[in-house]
Amino acid sequence: MGQAVVFDGTGVRVIGRETPSLQLDEALIQLKVAGVCSTDLALTRGYMNFEGVLGHEFAGEVVQGPEEWVGQRVVGEINIACGQCDLCRMGIPTQCRNRSTLGISGNYDGAFADEFKLVVRNLHRIPDNVTDIEAVFAEPLAAACEILQQVHLRPTEPIYILGVGRLGMLCAQVMHQAGMPVIGIVRHDRQVELLAKWGIEARWREEVPNARAGVVVDCTGNAAGFEDVLALVRPRGTVVLKSTYEGIPQANLSKIVVNEIAVVGSRCGPFDVALRLLSQKQIDVLSMIDGEYSLSDAPAALARAAQGGVLKLLLRP
Amino acid sequence: MGQAVVFDGTGVRVIGRETPSLQLDEALIQLKVAGVCSTDLALTRGYMNFEGVLGHEFAGEVVQGPEEWVGQRVVGEINIACGQCDLCRMGIPTQCRNRSTLGISGNYDGAFADEFKLVVRNLHRIPDNVTDIEAVFAEPLAAACEILQQVHLRPTEPIYILGVGRLGMLCAQVMHQAGMPVIGIVRHDRQVELLAKWGIEARWREEVPNARAGVVVDCTGNAAGFEDVLALVRPRGTVVLKSTYEGIPQANLSKIVVNEIAVVGSRCGPFDVALRLLSQKQIDVLSMIDGEYSLSDAPAALARAAQGGVLKLLLRP
Repeated sequence: MGQAVVFDGTGVRVIGRETPSLQLDEALIQLKVAGVCSTDLALTRGYMNFEGVLGHEFAGEVVQGPEEWVGQRVVGEINIACGQCDLCRMGIPTQCRNRSTLGISGNYDGAFADEFKLVVRNLHRIPDNVTDIEAVFAEPLAAACEILQQVHLRPTEPIYILGVGRLGMLCAQVMHQAGMPVIGIVRHDRQVELLAKWGIEARWREEVPNARAGVVVDCTGNAAGFEDVLALVRPRGTVVLKSTYEGIPQANLSKIVVNEIAVVGSRCGPFDVALRLLSQKQIDVLSMIDGEYSLSDAPAALARAAQGGVLKLLLRP
Repeated sequence: MGQAVVFDGTGVRVIGRETPSLQLDEALIQLKVAGVCSTDLALTRGYMNFEGVLGHEFAGEVVQGPEEWVGQRVVGEINIACGQCDLCRMGIPTQCRNRSTLGISGNYDGAFADEFKLVVRNLHRIPDNVTDIEAVFAEPLAAACEILQQVHLRPTEPIYILGVGRLGMLCAQVMHQAGMPVIGIVRHDRQVELLAKWGIEARWREEVPNARAGVVVDCTGNAAGFEDVLALVRPRGTVVLKSTYEGIPQANLSKIVVNEIAVVGSRCGPFDVALRLLSQKQIDVLSMIDGEYSLSDAPAALARAAQGGVLKLLLRP
């Protein structure tokens, strides 16, 4: 028996449940630390019609499964792929047509639990010099690194980040440490302070000219952000969409054609890169932590995470 | 004195006007043939708030200007660039921040006239084995070729073209002759016949599965097309937008993020490539001609071009 944080379609509750039973390709993981992500909040508002145990950012220890994994500290990729469909065979298992997603879709219960399971092939060992708390950031940091995989960034032109929150801060750091001239577009003094600490330029929206950015990364998480992103990017520039909008954006798409903008949707990324950056201490994640809660206080943590300006909240067993 | 087809903000009229006076960098061109484009129709509905002489697809002969150009048969690029701004200096004069566009914007009168002017640096000689009528297609054919410049097409996956009309037919031919498995999504028997003539597969929308195309080219010209384009493209696929929408599309953009779609706006293209393909007889443009009108009948030609399924209409002095 252990605790698990469940969304039942109407609210978030903490329940007791049996230790999950494993398939042959799965491992049982004991939670060390989990992180609250904006996607968790979206799920509790009905996104993906998910019901079950929430949570997909975690660091844990394998307690049952293949011998070589038992006792290892691990993080895990969230897409559980079939390995059979055309997209898996194309080498894009994160887009598997039959995938479940840990704590997000396909009835695959998540990591906000004392013990939970995940397919072994999704596990990554945490380097010895990376703490559990740092490792919790591997999943969103990998998503930030995906921008480097998808877009040819050039250090000659400013990259704007709109929505410098939990994910936007990681995107800013990843591109800054890659030598790019990053500008975070801020709305709170707290964002200015954090970006300054990392040597990243912060500007208020009204200080930033339209149609000048070579790349604009949208981490706003709301549909209204899209129109502003299109205003900021220069002709022939690139927009990276990191936000899943729950509404329909009211944006004039003819601008995409006339200005020949490229819009690139960007989701999960390479864990090995994220773990390497953490191991080499190139990303400061500790400054982004705004609080720790016990699993039994998860509803309070989720409520606080929904407040503007709150960065990473952690959950402990 | 000569004739010119003018849009005055409310309607299309044919007027008499003086021979245009030239700047030092301009040539005077005698029209041989012009083509009616969907953009001309959009302009007469208020797009770009343009008023002046319409027309940007032409073949003509230089009658005044630099000695080496006089007597040459020419086509011309439509963007009149400043050569000074950041985008010109980046080598993207088609996106010049201070540009005028022939018969489209910036008070630069167009080619639906017995005589008209254009900057010399925009002119391209028509190869001897390309007729005037064929050369009229250089401008839209260049726009079709731009897809090859912008997107890495791979011959392993179907490319769908939605909106197989004046521009879509050229896109289909360009990608087909490049060895790609092109499928035109048709709405009229006429489209089936033309595509069959070129060996290009035609399918009705209901025969085409969703989420399977590696690339979808949107030439529909209307906002409703965008949602269908997002339905057709596979995860990690690419959407090429060739349509300038006059409305706001009601599409769920979160699909772009979750499925990691790339959306690429695409406008003008390389004239040298278009002229080479025409010279090498790799593109059949003659089958796309649906009628010839005199300049004085331009209003009737524009009205007919607005009817569904009508392909290229030509104007003669």
